[in-house]
Amino acid sequence: MRYMSSADGHGARHTVSMDASTSRPHVVILGGGFGGLKAARALARAPVRVTLVDRANHHVFQPLLYQVAAASLSGPDIAAPLRHIVRRQRNITVWMEDVTGIDVAARRVQAGAQTIAYDYLIVATGSTHAYFGHDAWAEFAPGLKTMNDALAIRRRILSAFEAAEREPDAAKRAGWLAFVIVGAGPTGVELAGTLAEIAHHTLPREFRIAQPRKARIHLIEAGPRVLPAMPETLSATARRKLERMGVEVHTGTAATAIDAAGVRMGDEHVPARTVLWAAGVAASPLGAQFGAERDRAGRVKVAADLSLPGHPEVFVIGDLAWVEQCGQRVPGMAPAAKQMGAYAARVVRDRMAGRTAKPFRYRDFGSLASISRSSAVVDLRGLEFSGFAGWLFWLFAHILFLIGFRNRLAVMWNWAWSYMTWQRNARIIVGRDRTQ
Amino acid sequence: MRYMSSADGHGARHTVSMDASTSRPHVVILGGGFGGLKAARALARAPVRVTLVDRANHHVFQPLLYQVAAASLSGPDIAAPLRHIVRRQRNITVWMEDVTGIDVAARRVQAGAQTIAYDYLIVATGSTHAYFGHDAWAEFAPGLKTMNDALAIRRRILSAFEAAEREPDAAKRAGWLAFVIVGAGPTGVELAGTLAEIAHHTLPREFRIAQPRKARIHLIEAGPRVLPAMPETLSATARRKLERMGVEVHTGTAATAIDAAGVRMGDEHVPARTVLWAAGVAASPLGAQFGAERDRAGRVKVAADLSLPGHPEVFVIGDLAWVEQCGQRVPGMAPAAKQMGAYAARVVRDRMAGRTAKPFRYRDFGSLASISRSSAVVDLRGLEFSGFAGWLFWLFAHILFLIGFRNRLAVMWNWAWSYMTWQRNARIIVGRDRTQ
Repeated sequence: MRYMSSADGHGARHTVSMDASTSRPHVVILGGGFGGLKAARALARAPVRVTLVDRANHHVFQPLLYQVAAASLSGPDIAAPLRHIVRRQRNITVWMEDVTGIDVAARRVQAGAQTIAYDYLIVATGSTHAYFGHDAWAEFAPGLKTMNDALAIRRRILSAFEAAEREPDAAKRAGWLAFVIVGAGPTGVELAGTLAEIAHHTLPREFRIAQPRKARIHLIEAGPRVLPAMPETLSATARRKLERMGVEVHTGTAATAIDAAGVRMGDEHVPARTVLWAAGVAASPLGAQFGAERDRAGRVKVAADLSLPGHPEVFVIGDLAWVEQCGQRVPGMAPAAKQMGAYAARVVRDRMAGRTAKPFRYRDFGSLASISRSSAVVDLRGLEFSGFAGWLFWLFAHILFLIGFRNRLAVMWNWAWSYMTWQRNARIIVGRDRTQ
Repeated sequence: MRYMSSADGHGARHTVSMDASTSRPHVVILGGGFGGLKAARALARAPVRVTLVDRANHHVFQPLLYQVAAASLSGPDIAAPLRHIVRRQRNITVWMEDVTGIDVAARRVQAGAQTIAYDYLIVATGSTHAYFGHDAWAEFAPGLKTMNDALAIRRRILSAFEAAEREPDAAKRAGWLAFVIVGAGPTGVELAGTLAEIAHHTLPREFRIAQPRKARIHLIEAGPRVLPAMPETLSATARRKLERMGVEVHTGTAATAIDAAGVRMGDEHVPARTVLWAAGVAASPLGAQFGAERDRAGRVKVAADLSLPGHPEVFVIGDLAWVEQCGQRVPGMAPAAKQMGAYAARVVRDRMAGRTAKPFRYRDFGSLASISRSSAVVDLRGLEFSGFAGWLFWLFAHILFLIGFRNRLAVMWNWAWSYMTWQRNARIIVGRDRTQ
């Protein structure tokens, strides 16, 4: 660990490395999501030392996080320890630590009590929830970005049905059986669809007083349609399907107040004890450390090779990067992050070999969203389809990209079981939080 | 819900029930562990209404809880929602709620904000950890009784290896790689064995700085031998096997101090950042509500029919009950709790039919403990065996008694996978606690 010193207040013990292995350039990657992990793996055979830092010990397959929140999958089904994923890659060290500061002038990262010097830095710390200036809403309307978020949302959803069962007052019971999802992008649509399935199919037989069938699920969206990034025909299909499942879709409707009692939207107040946030995202706060230009969501403007202007040794990738191509933003999606991760790793290798890298080019393969247990919408930029065929495509795409053979089998098995029985396999409530 | 009133401060609205279904006697069961759940199911066809109250929404298969703590299984693998288990039993209502008081004179239970009147009460709230008067140890040496406990212990174990990897100081690193388990009953032995497997087989390849192979695992026991409830030959076998796996076994050794830096035992101080408590149990604090005779661990002395002396309508079962038979205590084990649950339900049915119940008789089928992935000790009271045959027996006994067909398949699959790969399937750290 010669490239690292303890934080001793003055940095004097910092970083002198002489032996052969440590004379290799040190690439530090912040964040083990899709972008950071891809970059790490793409450097497997490069003559560098890599340190991958993440505050969690695991990589999460985010597209299925909503299924953990909805108790269909257990956390370990869609996550794997980062150090397990890269265990065969001898040039990598994995650190589970919070990164608290980046000093681009001194080429140092502060991670917990320690300072890490780098030769190249790849920042892939992603995004977090944004409440459009209403930070007080966070307490009442949790968002879904991390495994801890998913488990907290699962706890709230399941606990709401439990509270309804105990509640003797009918009006209060209705509040426990009302769910509002704010934001109708893919996450909002998937949460609404799966909540409808839970309420109307999984739970009814098991409750005696509460009637889960009477649960109301509201999906509200400030824009004119659900899945705004998709073609209009697929939006219309998704909306029709959701409504047939009993989801109440409110488009052109913004939340104007959220508290423990429910959500105000325009003149209407919807009493609901469970509100989930799937609306805004903001770039990771680390983006503020560079003093670089940023957009309103905090994304960092990068050069054509994804490097920080004035700092060719620093790359910003994934949801944290503001990249434009043909006048359009590259979207904050897993495939884009992976492409950027692979690209940044290639630039590092090229530079070391004295080659000049071509500018980054995003290849857009499309997007997809699941609506129910046998329906999804798929937009492959030119080819659009939905329904059962869409769902099969969704299924195989997700199984294919899930990391780890064991996870693939486990998820397929859980899905098959749920499909046959309508059951949710992970309906256990652990931990406690304020609202319960 | 006519048998229940809101807590309105004066109790005036309490419990008048007239219609046909509610004229059935109301059996309230506190606790959905082995005893309470068995009692609930045994009342399926009795002409009673049953309310099952538990603070968790799930039944836990406690004998495998250590495998959740050791990241071999995920929580949902060994737990099932109580209301799902009894969903077909129309005379049951399940409540997830904390019970805060029992008024045996008024025949009422206080559960959260609500008061539940009962005709029969079955108290099966089990046991918790006891630190022999050293409550301050709880913070540093968590015990293993609930799913939340298991997840907290998993977090500590995995986080300790992560902290070791980040720690530049060799002495401090050794503290992160030292584990002390206090108490060498079945839980302590199983935790020690599985920790040795994790450190010496699962993790080594994945760390670059920390050397999990160098981890020291101490199992300390105040009594003269491990597995004190088992025959001496099996204790000796278990100890030999543990030592061969690298566990340092200290018998005749009591912990005299525990803090964040480690454990003091006699003159020796073992620096260890992770200490697990598998020593003392105390009966659930609800036992104090009856004003009845209790033993030192807080167990409630019951009559020959498991009822509370002076209150034939109140039964105390499982770990909370102090039952003697032929001069010996009935042990706090799952089979005993299940037998008591079935018995209490039978007494209720007998009373309603005007029959007199025979006294409770515990049938002791023996006990068993797993040591490693292919070794266990089995004592069937007359037939003792160990090693691979013991392990196969252990395996099938656990699969057999696990509730839910789906859980059985999931656990078998996870075990088969772990067996082939040495991997742990649930190595993700969620939540945070003080020590990290």
